[in-house]
Amino acid sequence: MPIRLGELARQFDCKLLGDAEVQIASVASLGSAGPDALSFLSGAAFKQQLATTRAAAVIVRAADAKDCPTASLVHENPYACYARIADFLYPPPAIEPGIHRSAELAASARISPSAQISAHVCIGERSIIGDHTYIAPGCIIGDDCRIGSNGRMLANVTVVSRVTIGNRFILHPGVVIGSDGFGNAMTPQGWVKVPQLGGVRVGDDVEVGANSAIDLGALEDTVIGDGVRIDNLVHVAHNVKIGAHTAIAGQCGFSGSVTIGQRCMFGGQSGVAGHLTICDDVIVNGKGLITKSITQPGVYSSAFPSEPVNEWNRIVARIRRLGNLIERISKLEKRES
Amino acid sequence: MPIRLGELARQFDCKLLGDAEVQIASVASLGSAGPDALSFLSGAAFKQQLATTRAAAVIVRAADAKDCPTASLVHENPYACYARIADFLYPPPAIEPGIHRSAELAASARISPSAQISAHVCIGERSIIGDHTYIAPGCIIGDDCRIGSNGRMLANVTVVSRVTIGNRFILHPGVVIGSDGFGNAMTPQGWVKVPQLGGVRVGDDVEVGANSAIDLGALEDTVIGDGVRIDNLVHVAHNVKIGAHTAIAGQCGFSGSVTIGQRCMFGGQSGVAGHLTICDDVIVNGKGLITKSITQPGVYSSAFPSEPVNEWNRIVARIRRLGNLIERISKLEKRES
Amino acid sequence: MPIRLGELARQFDCKLLGDAEVQIASVASLGSAGPDALSFLSGAAFKQQLATTRAAAVIVRAADAKDCPTASLVHENPYACYARIADFLYPPPAIEPGIHRSAELAASARISPSAQISAHVCIGERSIIGDHTYIAPGCIIGDDCRIGSNGRMLANVTVVSRVTIGNRFILHPGVVIGSDGFGNAMTPQGWVKVPQLGGVRVGDDVEVGANSAIDLGALEDTVIGDGVRIDNLVHVAHNVKIGAHTAIAGQCGFSGSVTIGQRCMFGGQSGVAGHLTICDDVIVNGKGLITKSITQPGVYSSAFPSEPVNEWNRIVARIRRLGNLIERISKLEKRES
Repeated sequence: MPIRLGELARQFDCKLLGDAEVQIASVASLGSAGPDALSFLSGAAFKQQLATTRAAAVIVRAADAKDCPTASLVHENPYACYARIADFLYPPPAIEPGIHRSAELAASARISPSAQISAHVCIGERSIIGDHTYIAPGCIIGDDCRIGSNGRMLANVTVVSRVTIGNRFILHPGVVIGSDGFGNAMTPQGWVKVPQLGGVRVGDDVEVGANSAIDLGALEDTVIGDGVRIDNLVHVAHNVKIGAHTAIAGQCGFSGSVTIGQRCMFGGQSGVAGHLTICDDVIVNGKGLITKSITQPGVYSSAFPSEPVNEWNRIVARIRRLGNLIERISKLEKRES
Repeated sequence: MPIRLGELARQFDCKLLGDAEVQIASVASLGSAGPDALSFLSGAAFKQQLATTRAAAVIVRAADAKDCPTASLVHENPYACYARIADFLYPPPAIEPGIHRSAELAASARISPSAQISAHVCIGERSIIGDHTYIAPGCIIGDDCRIGSNGRMLANVTVVSRVTIGNRFILHPGVVIGSDGFGNAMTPQGWVKVPQLGGVRVGDDVEVGANSAIDLGALEDTVIGDGVRIDNLVHVAHNVKIGAHTAIAGQCGFSGSVTIGQRCMFGGQSGVAGHLTICDDVIVNGKGLITKSITQPGVYSSAFPSEPVNEWNRIVARIRRLGNLIERISKLEKRES
Repeated sequence: MPIRLGELARQFDCKLLGDAEVQIASVASLGSAGPDALSFLSGAAFKQQLATTRAAAVIVRAADAKDCPTASLVHENPYACYARIADFLYPPPAIEPGIHRSAELAASARISPSAQISAHVCIGERSIIGDHTYIAPGCIIGDDCRIGSNGRMLANVTVVSRVTIGNRFILHPGVVIGSDGFGNAMTPQGWVKVPQLGGVRVGDDVEVGANSAIDLGALEDTVIGDGVRIDNLVHVAHNVKIGAHTAIAGQCGFSGSVTIGQRCMFGGQSGVAGHLTICDDVIVNGKGLITKSITQPGVYSSAFPSEPVNEWNRIVARIRRLGNLIERISKLEKRES
């Protein structure tokens, strides 16, 4: 279903430069776009591909429009504009309301008639599924969960119990929400499990990546704010609170009772130690470790970049000799004086 | 079902200070407790909340009893005492013995009549499920597994084959036990898979967090000792042996053939390189990397805490210049002499 | 089913030293082998166990044959030879072709009559399952997937959509392939999801460990080359390309649009930042962080090994004083001149 470029400009609030009649049937990167594709220029790194693109049209910032050899849609945020047009051209599959005969629903579960409950799904007592929400095969939702509307729970997700999820969520396969937090009291006879009695509250417009896990709170709730984006294999421990619009890349870990501000960004494999507070607008670079609360917005790092192993071994050895170096310098200073 | 404070003191072996008739209906943190709640003071960090708590009663150490404005239960380990009372007040849901009609059981599987096998569960040949054990929906248990009694296997867990699990286990959703270890022999034509022929033996009272994975041994068994506590997204490779009562936080990784002592504690995202042995009572701080065997109990660390990125970049640059610094110091020393 | 040693020598192309009539019924490590077991000597670390092994026979390199107290199979690569013989003696369970009555297959799915589709499996529209492929219980395969022949998909795997997998694959439990990449465009109103429109192409002879996740490409495909071996809990982001025969240990993470060469090896918990290219034959040691493209084969490291915490704290303090040290050295140099 190709669409006129002029129509896209109108719907997505862009300034059109060039032929409004160009037909757009697909989206593609600048380098691989064919003559029916819309592309976008999202950063300076791709600028040199602009001159040679075979795209039908390109979404560009005003400043780049003069260098665009094709028709263009001018927008202040080409990447976001591209995202919205791509979503329009490639909508997620329509849902087919109804409950698959192999699904097992508790008597007190309440399922919106416009929701789709797929094969081999289980839904527990008193749980609620909102309007137009899709629950893929193999999802297990326990007791006392409230799942919002217009959401998509992909396959084999587990939502354990006492979990509230807002509207327009996307949970990717293997996600677990509502597992017990890691609470253990030490005794001479070994660990005593501390019952995890809180819940999880997830805001609207939250996306959680494959095989990530978000634990129940110990007494109060674990809270994921509106618009939070979580990538794959992320660990969110009990009582964590993550502020709205924070984005968390793959394999990050948040220890118990951490409070994260709004609009933060965590690079892959970064971690935050327990009970800390991180203010709004903090960026933690990949593999970073946070061991103290952060009160100033900004970018934080703690990971050393790789070196060839021989050089790295020398660096480690030199670091181990730092105490000796300091002594030698002090000695020199004393002789000086 | 409120309970008299005096009754709790009696059952949980505490000294009661104050009104034995106070009714306890819930548990809560000091800060949020209401007038029917029992709270606890587990560490100095919370001491200032004690004075203003609205709790009905608080579990405290003897030394703190004089500062407690409410009735109190005096116990040498308030956190463990709290855990036991919370478990008593909020027991896990009772199980409903029986086998759901959608479960698929091999002919030779033996299920205790007091076990609960939920919807869409599969259990393979010769596998055994013990008394009063709960198997949640979507769990897949393969052949030749022995699952103990009074355990709880939450939803979508996979136990592959040749896995023995003791009594009173808790496996959280998405856990995998008995996947093949990562054994590959290099040849000029590529990797040859090394069959993983061992099993996994898990002791009693073990808890494993969401989406963690424990591999089969290559030839002998992977072994998880009694009372071990494993958090979410932890990786336990083939032939690993973990001693009793060791606790492992989220996203830790144990390489092949590692042997870990008893009562160790691993902070989140820490890792142990292959074939090492770590003695009893070792604590590894978060993101720590262990590359040599450890023979002395104690606390070990290797992760640098984050700095603002500009400062961190300066630190990295300075570390790279360490060789040069050492030369400059040597030169100064030579001139001196 | 014991087999003559002479027969193993013939089938697996080894030189036989000693009694060809010895019966082999099992495989075992040198230390635990009994009198019907074949063992192997794979490295110098195990050499001292050779003298006292009770094995029936041992696979050794020619240079070690003289020290072998038992019959031996001489092979240039004992570990690979062992792997092949172990696979012969302990083949994976035979598959039972057919479709379980509880499986849910889309009308347009095409399943080879020699494939086994287990209980509670779902397969979506236009997806294809190849000959002699085993799909374990609880696997969910979405639309437009092509799954090769002679593969084994263990339990509770999710293959989302637009995923092609070659022949002889092994996917361990909980694997997710084809989840959306982490694409988000920032706007003043929060993140806009960038539709992930590419697929995943997995070559032949690929093994993926428990609970690992491989995302769809954003526009083009994520590509896993032939013979790649991926361990547990590994994260492969969108548009990543991994060259043939690369091996990736547990909990590694590959950020978006990374290109990895052939025959690389990644130690556990290592990570690669986005958009980098790593050439063939690179080894990254455990917990290593790669932040720049690598053009030279070799071994790379960036993780500091653990120290007792007091020593580590001194090291951190000294590193923080490096700027001051450099100043002090400069001052000494100035006074000198």
